[in-house]
Amino acid sequence: MPVRLSPPSAHALNAIPGVRLGVAEAHIRKANRRDLLLIELPENASIAAVFTQNRFCAAPVTVAKRHLTGGKAIRALIVNTGNANAGTGSEGEARALRSCEAVAKALGCDADQVLPFSTGVIMEPLPVERIEAGLPQCVSSLAEESWLDAAEAIMTTDIVAKAASRRVDVGGRTVTITGIAKGSGMIHPNMATMLGFMATDAHLSVQTADELLRDVVADTFNSITVDGDTSTNDALVLISAPPGEGPPLDDAEARVFRDALYEVALELAQAIVRDGEGATKFMTISVTGGRDRDECRAVAFSIAHSPLIKTAFFASDPNLGRILAAIGYAPIEALDVNAVTVHLGDLLVAANGGRSSGYDEGRAAQIMQAEEITVRVDLHRGEAAATVWTCDFSHDYVRINAEYRS
Amino acid sequence: MPVRLSPPSAHALNAIPGVRLGVAEAHIRKANRRDLLLIELPENASIAAVFTQNRFCAAPVTVAKRHLTGGKAIRALIVNTGNANAGTGSEGEARALRSCEAVAKALGCDADQVLPFSTGVIMEPLPVERIEAGLPQCVSSLAEESWLDAAEAIMTTDIVAKAASRRVDVGGRTVTITGIAKGSGMIHPNMATMLGFMATDAHLSVQTADELLRDVVADTFNSITVDGDTSTNDALVLISAPPGEGPPLDDAEARVFRDALYEVALELAQAIVRDGEGATKFMTISVTGGRDRDECRAVAFSIAHSPLIKTAFFASDPNLGRILAAIGYAPIEALDVNAVTVHLGDLLVAANGGRSSGYDEGRAAQIMQAEEITVRVDLHRGEAAATVWTCDFSHDYVRINAEYRS
Repeated sequence: MPVRLSPPSAHALNAIPGVRLGVAEAHIRKANRRDLLLIELPENASIAAVFTQNRFCAAPVTVAKRHLTGGKAIRALIVNTGNANAGTGSEGEARALRSCEAVAKALGCDADQVLPFSTGVIMEPLPVERIEAGLPQCVSSLAEESWLDAAEAIMTTDIVAKAASRRVDVGGRTVTITGIAKGSGMIHPNMATMLGFMATDAHLSVQTADELLRDVVADTFNSITVDGDTSTNDALVLISAPPGEGPPLDDAEARVFRDALYEVALELAQAIVRDGEGATKFMTISVTGGRDRDECRAVAFSIAHSPLIKTAFFASDPNLGRILAAIGYAPIEALDVNAVTVHLGDLLVAANGGRSSGYDEGRAAQIMQAEEITVRVDLHRGEAAATVWTCDFSHDYVRINAEYRS
Repeated sequence: MPVRLSPPSAHALNAIPGVRLGVAEAHIRKANRRDLLLIELPENASIAAVFTQNRFCAAPVTVAKRHLTGGKAIRALIVNTGNANAGTGSEGEARALRSCEAVAKALGCDADQVLPFSTGVIMEPLPVERIEAGLPQCVSSLAEESWLDAAEAIMTTDIVAKAASRRVDVGGRTVTITGIAKGSGMIHPNMATMLGFMATDAHLSVQTADELLRDVVADTFNSITVDGDTSTNDALVLISAPPGEGPPLDDAEARVFRDALYEVALELAQAIVRDGEGATKFMTISVTGGRDRDECRAVAFSIAHSPLIKTAFFASDPNLGRILAAIGYAPIEALDVNAVTVHLGDLLVAANGGRSSGYDEGRAAQIMQAEEITVRVDLHRGEAAATVWTCDFSHDYVRINAEYRS
C-alpha cells in the first residue's frame, strides 16, 4: 500500500488556461481502463523536456526529441500506457510517428508539432491502430479542468494517481503550476522519471524553462529510486502557456518561480516513491559532510539500492550494520570509516568505525516501526550534501513483478 | 531451495597432508550448531589471500592482513560464524586479536601466526569469550579428513555445504586441491566471496600462490552476485602445504595447476549462487563482442543485479524487454543498441534494436521453465567477453532477509 499518499482532489488541481486534457479507454493492453491521454497546448506555449539516458531509449523518446528540436511550436502531447514502444527498432519509430500523425489530423497541426510518450511492457509492438481508434474520445473530452482524469489515465502499476499544484506570486502576478506523474517500478530516473508533465501559466522563455527543469529535476526526480532499474521511457516535461503577450520572467522572478516548481516536482517525485511497487515504508537517505555532491549521492544510492537494507526496513528490523556495509562499498575515494556517523531518525547509531556507545536497540526498533524513516550519514570530510528518497523491499514487490504481464 | 546443488560427500574431499581441521559448537549466536572452525597448517605452508574491498572491512580482515604481511609463517586459521565482527571499531580489533592469542596458546605458536575470519551479523560485539571456550573442542577434533565438517561449520543462511576437490598431474606428480566456501546473501564479491578456503599439497611459492589466486578469483568468485551487496568480510585463502622439501612449481607446472585450481574455485563460487538466498534459478549471463572485459562485465552485472529481471526469471516469465533496459543503462560508452543481439538459451530474442523477427514467445516460455538458464548478449563491437553467474529473486529472498536476525 502507498505510504501516506492520498489521491489528489480534482478541485485542488488548478487549471492552466489554454492547456486542455482529454482521456480515452483505448484498450491498448487491457479493457475497461483509461490508457490514452491527449494534452493540447495553446499556440504560444513553450516547452522543455528531459529524457531517459537509457541507451535502449524508447521510440517515442527518439521521436519526441526530434520534434522538440525541429523548430516548430509543439501543439500536443499524446501519452499511452500498456505498451512502452521500447526495444522495437525502426518499426517502433514508424508507429510512434503514426500516432503523431493521427493527433495532427485531429487537431489541425503538423505531425512534428506533436510529442509522443509511451509506458508499459518493453519489446512488444505498439498497437497504434488502437491509439488512432481512441483519439476521437480524447478530443471530445478535452477540457482545462481534467488534470485528475489525466493523472489517472497514465497510471500503470500505480495504486494512487499523482498530481500536484501550487500558486505563487511572481512579479506582482499570481501564477499557477500544475503537474502529474506516473511511475511505480523500474524507477531509478536518470534525467527524469517514467513520465511527468508540469504546466504553468507563467511566461518562461524556452531557455529559462529548460534551465529551471534541469535545475529542479536534479534534486527531485533524479533523487529517487524504487528498484535501481532505469527505465527506457523516462520523460519529464515543463510547459509554459502564458495567457498574454507580456515579457518572460526575468532572472529574479525565475528564482521565485523555481521554488514553487521545485515543490511541485518534489511532491510528484516523492509520490512515486510512496507508491513504489510493494512499498510499506518511505525512506529519506540524507548524506552530509561530503567533498562534493556526487560522492554524497553515491553513498545515498548505495544505501537506497541495497536489497538487504530495504528488506530490513520492510521487517522493521534495526539490522543497521547493513547500512555500514553499503557505505563501505559505495564507490568513493579514500573514505575514513572512523569519521563516519550514522543516525536513524535522531538516534546516533554508528561512530568511530562501529556502533555508538549510546546506541539503544529498543529505541531503534521503535523508530523502525514508523512509516517514514530518515537515515542520516555524515562523512565528516567536506561541506557537500545530498538527499535521496526510496522505499522498502517487500513480498509484494516480488509478487507484482513476477506477475506483471499475467 | 538450492538449484541443482547436492551436499558434497566426505569421501570425495581429498585430504591435504598436514592440514588439519577441527570444529566446535561455540554458541556464538545460536545453540546446537557448529559455528567455530580451526584450521591448523604445517610449518612449511605458504599462504595467499584476497579480501573484501569494502571500506567498512571487518576487524578480522584488518588483523588477518596485518599478520599475513608480518613475515612470520602462518600456522592456523580461526573462523567463526554468527557474528561478523564488522563495524566494531578498535574494540573489534582487540577481540579479533584475542581470538588469535587463544589459538596461539592452544597450538604453541605466536598470535601473529594466526589469521582470524568472521561472518554473521554486522555491528554487534564479538563474543570472543565463547570462541575461547569453544577452542578446546576444535583442537581435540583436529583431523586431516574433516573438510566436510569444516564446510558445515562455516554455513550461515547456506542450505547446502560447499566443498570441492580435484586431483591433477603436475610435473609427474599427482597433487590435490581441496576447498570449502560459504555464502548465500550479501554476495557481490569484490576481491573474494564471503569466506573461502582452498588448500593444496602442490608446492607453491608465496608469489605464485598469490598470482594464481588473483588470477582465478577474477573469473570465479568475482564473477558472481546474489544481491549486489558487497560484504564487509569477504576473504578467500589459498594454502600450499607441500609434503616434502622439493622446489616450488615452475611456470609451466603452475599453468597446469592453475586450471585445476580454477575448477575448484568455479565450483565453489557457483555453489554459492546455486544456494543464493531464496534461489530457484541459476542464471549464466555471458557477454561477448565487447571492446574490453570491463564493459562486458558492466553489462553482465547490470543484468544480474536488476530486480526486475530477477523477479521475471523467478516467475518463468519471458518479460525480456527488461534485459534490453538493463543493457541500455549499463555504464558503457557509445553503445550502438542496433548492433546488440540477445539470446535466451539458443533462441535469438533481440536484434536490430528490437525483438527478433523469428522470436517465439512459446519457445521462450519453455526455456524460462528450466532451472538453469543462459542469457547471451553480443555487443558486436570487439573481441572481449565475460561471464557472470547469478540467481533469481524470489519471495524467499525477502522472507529470509526480513527475518534474518529474528
